[in-house]
Amino acid sequence: MNTVNPSPLAIQASENLKRIRETAPLVHNITNFVVMNFTANLLLATGASPVMAHAENEVEDMVSFAKALVLNIGTLTDDWVASMIKAGKKATELGVPILLDPVGAGATALRTNAAKQILAETKVTVVRGNASEILALGGGAAHTKGVDSADTVDAAAARAVSLAQELGVPVAITGEVDFITDGQRVVRVANGHPLMGRVTGTGCGATAILGAFAGVDPDPVSAAATALAFYGLAGERAAQGAEGPGSFAVRFIDALASLTPEEVVQGSRIQEG
Amino acid sequence: MNTVNPSPLAIQASENLKRIRETAPLVHNITNFVVMNFTANLLLATGASPVMAHAENEVEDMVSFAKALVLNIGTLTDDWVASMIKAGKKATELGVPILLDPVGAGATALRTNAAKQILAETKVTVVRGNASEILALGGGAAHTKGVDSADTVDAAAARAVSLAQELGVPVAITGEVDFITDGQRVVRVANGHPLMGRVTGTGCGATAILGAFAGVDPDPVSAAATALAFYGLAGERAAQGAEGPGSFAVRFIDALASLTPEEVVQGSRIQEG
Amino acid sequence: MNTVNPSPLAIQASENLKRIRETAPLVHNITNFVVMNFTANLLLATGASPVMAHAENEVEDMVSFAKALVLNIGTLTDDWVASMIKAGKKATELGVPILLDPVGAGATALRTNAAKQILAETKVTVVRGNASEILALGGGAAHTKGVDSADTVDAAAARAVSLAQELGVPVAITGEVDFITDGQRVVRVANGHPLMGRVTGTGCGATAILGAFAGVDPDPVSAAATALAFYGLAGERAAQGAEGPGSFAVRFIDALASLTPEEVVQGSRIQEG
Repeated sequence: MNTVNPSPLAIQASENLKRIRETAPLVHNITNFVVMNFTANLLLATGASPVMAHAENEVEDMVSFAKALVLNIGTLTDDWVASMIKAGKKATELGVPILLDPVGAGATALRTNAAKQILAETKVTVVRGNASEILALGGGAAHTKGVDSADTVDAAAARAVSLAQELGVPVAITGEVDFITDGQRVVRVANGHPLMGRVTGTGCGATAILGAFAGVDPDPVSAAATALAFYGLAGERAAQGAEGPGSFAVRFIDALASLTPEEVVQGSRIQEG
Repeated sequence: MNTVNPSPLAIQASENLKRIRETAPLVHNITNFVVMNFTANLLLATGASPVMAHAENEVEDMVSFAKALVLNIGTLTDDWVASMIKAGKKATELGVPILLDPVGAGATALRTNAAKQILAETKVTVVRGNASEILALGGGAAHTKGVDSADTVDAAAARAVSLAQELGVPVAITGEVDFITDGQRVVRVANGHPLMGRVTGTGCGATAILGAFAGVDPDPVSAAATALAFYGLAGERAAQGAEGPGSFAVRFIDALASLTPEEVVQGSRIQEG
Repeated sequence: MNTVNPSPLAIQASENLKRIRETAPLVHNITNFVVMNFTANLLLATGASPVMAHAENEVEDMVSFAKALVLNIGTLTDDWVASMIKAGKKATELGVPILLDPVGAGATALRTNAAKQILAETKVTVVRGNASEILALGGGAAHTKGVDSADTVDAAAARAVSLAQELGVPVAITGEVDFITDGQRVVRVANGHPLMGRVTGTGCGATAILGAFAGVDPDPVSAAATALAFYGLAGERAAQGAEGPGSFAVRFIDALASLTPEEVVQGSRIQEG
């Protein structure tokens, strides 16, 4: 649909990718044990420079060098929450964008409370989750099963605009069609492939790549939409020829590295309004 | 050998796989840092829904949703033991099956004691390990080298029947031929491939997949035998065309996702008695 | 260049590889969360036996069985530093070689201080890092960006000979051409491929493989040079036919497993003096 008149956000997606590859923004991740390796490789493949550091006596130093801070609450414990808050406060002070991934919010009190505390005590730039996780942040009736969503994006989208307004934080809900809103603007991204749901950490990875994009694009809605279009497009390419989730994951990393800005303009399926 | 008359356990293996793919049982893992990502991907590929959560103030909540709890003592510290015990007691209370992987039992006092404590304080459904690890649980002379076995399955099998009786826990010893016993029944599974021993976490992954099978099959011996047949069969398929342990691991995940129930009936090499 | 007269170190590289495959030396790693899985798979593919254990009440037991101890300060916290020091002191007492990877030294005070403390309180056999990390150990002006080097190997090499003398520890700086010195001898290794820098943990993995080589070769300079030649050669082989960093990583593990001692003699590009 974008072959004749690429949308402004499709053009922005390719511009953001170029900037990431030129400047290699440092993305500081405080993330869960399951996805640390995959996340670092996704960021490296895209062209960003990942660092993982979670020690309470180190996070302020590290975030000072960073272009984005990614907070992910999978495999959480109380000491990690404390580090996330500390890093988040420093990032807020320095104007470093903060991306929050509320993994499993709604499933346990620890996770729901941690996500809410981060939202309350730091200035989050975008919160990205699946439908259940986002619904849980609003105190609504979410149906989280472990860390997988039991709610549809549509059900969450209906609530997301008012939620973004209440929280004062742009929201990105990922699913078959991704939904992004800051409470005013509404953007949908139709890129992606079902195999992405068969590989652990693709959701967490989306938030990390959003960190790279937020590191070069000061507009949260644009950063989120362009990151998710690029990310989903890489999933589409990776699915071609994949023989299952194992080979898909390998091809996905390759695709993040090989997609050109031109291909991103042509392939992004971003709809605003 | 099963082409004419598939054994009842081969048929059960395919039934269990169907149930996993239909119901996506939530498997709660408290496992080691080395294998978290691989374990999650193995479970997802098989059709189960993995979650990793180890915080002492979260594990009771999480295990309440789960169909199985997998406790794995690699990269252990005291606080993780406490969480495992807490989760295990809750699982015992709720009747959620518990799978214990005594990684490195016999190598250090911390690990041997942790495995014994879990066996004493929770109702373990099946304990799966290599020969040295299983022998170490009985207080016998094990020859663990780090986390790799220096004992043969045959040596351990001779001891396993009485050990299962003493512990009151079914035992699964994996190796060239897997050996499963609850102290009465004895089942051998001849599926598998040597490349499985060249990839870290294939043993731990077997225990996790056993969790998925125990989540749909209340008979511990049947759950263990069918899980190990399915798992080993995926290893055989993955080895075809693999160029080394790296490509084998990728193909292994693909094989777990692509094996059909019919192929599992035909390929399972399970012998009872 | 080695086809007519293989250098003594190229021959030693093949001898060391043979010994590793024959004896499967146990390499005890206290390393960061990002690379644990990859590190274990690299060691297994090479032929060594990896174990990860970091509990303060276990590390002395574990290191007693080991042929090498790898200390890596990525994703560090104070309790991990304490475990590294404890393991390192025991290794020093037992004569087990210690390999230090000062990940991110120079970036934060926590990491720089931890690296220096390990160097002061244990007898490190070889410290391997990128140029910025090595420069940071000497108190010089390093330009670390997160965990990536902003200094050239040449800049660091000029300082490395005196640094090795001051520290009393052989130093290996990896980059386009690796530079190894004990303060007297100087060896350069020209094996490797740029894709190695696009996969997280290849630097950490080099230190782990150095551990395997140090486990069979008592000469630190020889162990480091031969390990890095073998490792870089595997990178060269993996790059052939790789379609990006994802497939490269898979092929890299395959290459570590498939390289023969003869190929190592022919392919090592090690220059002494």
